[in-house]
Amino acid sequence: MQSLAMARGVLLDLSGVLYDGDTVLPGAVAAISRLRDAGLPIRFLTNTTRQAKRQLLAQLQRLGFDCAAEEVFTPVAAVRAWLQRNGHQPHLLVHPALEEDFADCRAEGPVAVVLGDAAERFSYDRLNAAFRALSNGAPFLALARNRFFRHRDGGLSLDAGPFVEALEYASGVKARLFGKPAANFFLAAAASMGLEPKDVVMVGDDAESDIAGALAAGIGTALLVRTGKYRDGDEHHFQPEPTAVIDDIRAACALILHRA
Amino acid sequence: MQSLAMARGVLLDLSGVLYDGDTVLPGAVAAISRLRDAGLPIRFLTNTTRQAKRQLLAQLQRLGFDCAAEEVFTPVAAVRAWLQRNGHQPHLLVHPALEEDFADCRAEGPVAVVLGDAAERFSYDRLNAAFRALSNGAPFLALARNRFFRHRDGGLSLDAGPFVEALEYASGVKARLFGKPAANFFLAAAASMGLEPKDVVMVGDDAESDIAGALAAGIGTALLVRTGKYRDGDEHHFQPEPTAVIDDIRAACALILHRA
Repeated sequence: MQSLAMARGVLLDLSGVLYDGDTVLPGAVAAISRLRDAGLPIRFLTNTTRQAKRQLLAQLQRLGFDCAAEEVFTPVAAVRAWLQRNGHQPHLLVHPALEEDFADCRAEGPVAVVLGDAAERFSYDRLNAAFRALSNGAPFLALARNRFFRHRDGGLSLDAGPFVEALEYASGVKARLFGKPAANFFLAAAASMGLEPKDVVMVGDDAESDIAGALAAGIGTALLVRTGKYRDGDEHHFQPEPTAVIDDIRAACALILHRA
Repeated sequence: MQSLAMARGVLLDLSGVLYDGDTVLPGAVAAISRLRDAGLPIRFLTNTTRQAKRQLLAQLQRLGFDCAAEEVFTPVAAVRAWLQRNGHQPHLLVHPALEEDFADCRAEGPVAVVLGDAAERFSYDRLNAAFRALSNGAPFLALARNRFFRHRDGGLSLDAGPFVEALEYASGVKARLFGKPAANFFLAAAASMGLEPKDVVMVGDDAESDIAGALAAGIGTALLVRTGKYRDGDEHHFQPEPTAVIDDIRAACALILHRA
């Protein structure tokens, strides 16, 4: 284990770290409270795109987590800003629940394909329509490219990443990534706390997108928890490897407070 | 253009070379007859997996092409042989029309995921079931990994390849490829004519899987036609580049007979 730097702010992944489906992971609510009591600012960083931000906040509050809208970072805001800045309208291949977050985007001008975890919406016809748009020159904006997540039935399920890969392979158009592990996603969250990336700790269950992504972006410390999608040995599959591998959010909280 | 070797046998791709959908390409039927009149053996090599072999033969005959079942090579036979040899039953993610070609495969023992161009069958749930089988250790057998094909509506449509990529990315399991551009597919067809690969010419509209694949396998000559899925500049996107790029099957036939 590398030495653990002092943390002045905390970035937390959601699903697999704080909860699995509708089940709060043991000690997660108390861990958040302890971090807050210690005066550490927190940002919640999720690539989950099966919910509108409104629904995500409602779920967090229903599960007992104390958090404010401005503390929750999803890739949607960055994609919306890109569309606005570049004068594109979105061609959406996203979960129906996410559509409301794009409802006020422009509906004219050239299209950009926006892909999230569309779940059952990933039909052949919708994938093919997106492929044709890309073949006609549309830019490709990916909310996330995670490989899989732990489904509430206990099994692993396909996330957005495999479908990003599929459309890149077919069209030859490389996707621009907005969620983790994109460096800008971590850096924007650190900046929103007024902190240097090196003074921040990231906690996640995805060795690739939470951990290697954060460290590559310059985040000082990244703790991989053995909950959620974690599988034995994950910490050795991606570079950089986590600062530490620990049991769960409780252990992460204890480690952070010990050093803070 | 490299020099064109003498051809003693001909390998022909089907869709995009002889026909597009239900439309015979100009001069295609006559071109086949001329090759036969010249005494050149022919094999038809297709990665198309939206039809059973029985239906494919019926289509060829309905369109006016003179060909026998043993002249038509699809990846199915090689996959069936692999399953038999390795004692696996297939977990099929294929077009419903193709299922009959696997009907007599074993229905017990460990599963192997078999993926073809399943078209509208590529639902999230079916892809996820295949992903879970792969995550549990099933081998991954791909009938083809073509990127797209020219649909009868005139547009390009997703082929099997993007879905192979998606499941490889999610599961970390690399697919074993049986159709073009797998070298064995070309070599088996050449051997069935009793010819050395170097004495054979391949004609196709796919610069990657027909042309680069054949040349990499040792086929002596590969002619890329400007019909079907061909798009300007395709000949420069994959290595090795075609021996020659020509208008269509008529021109290919003329060139072959001139040298034969």
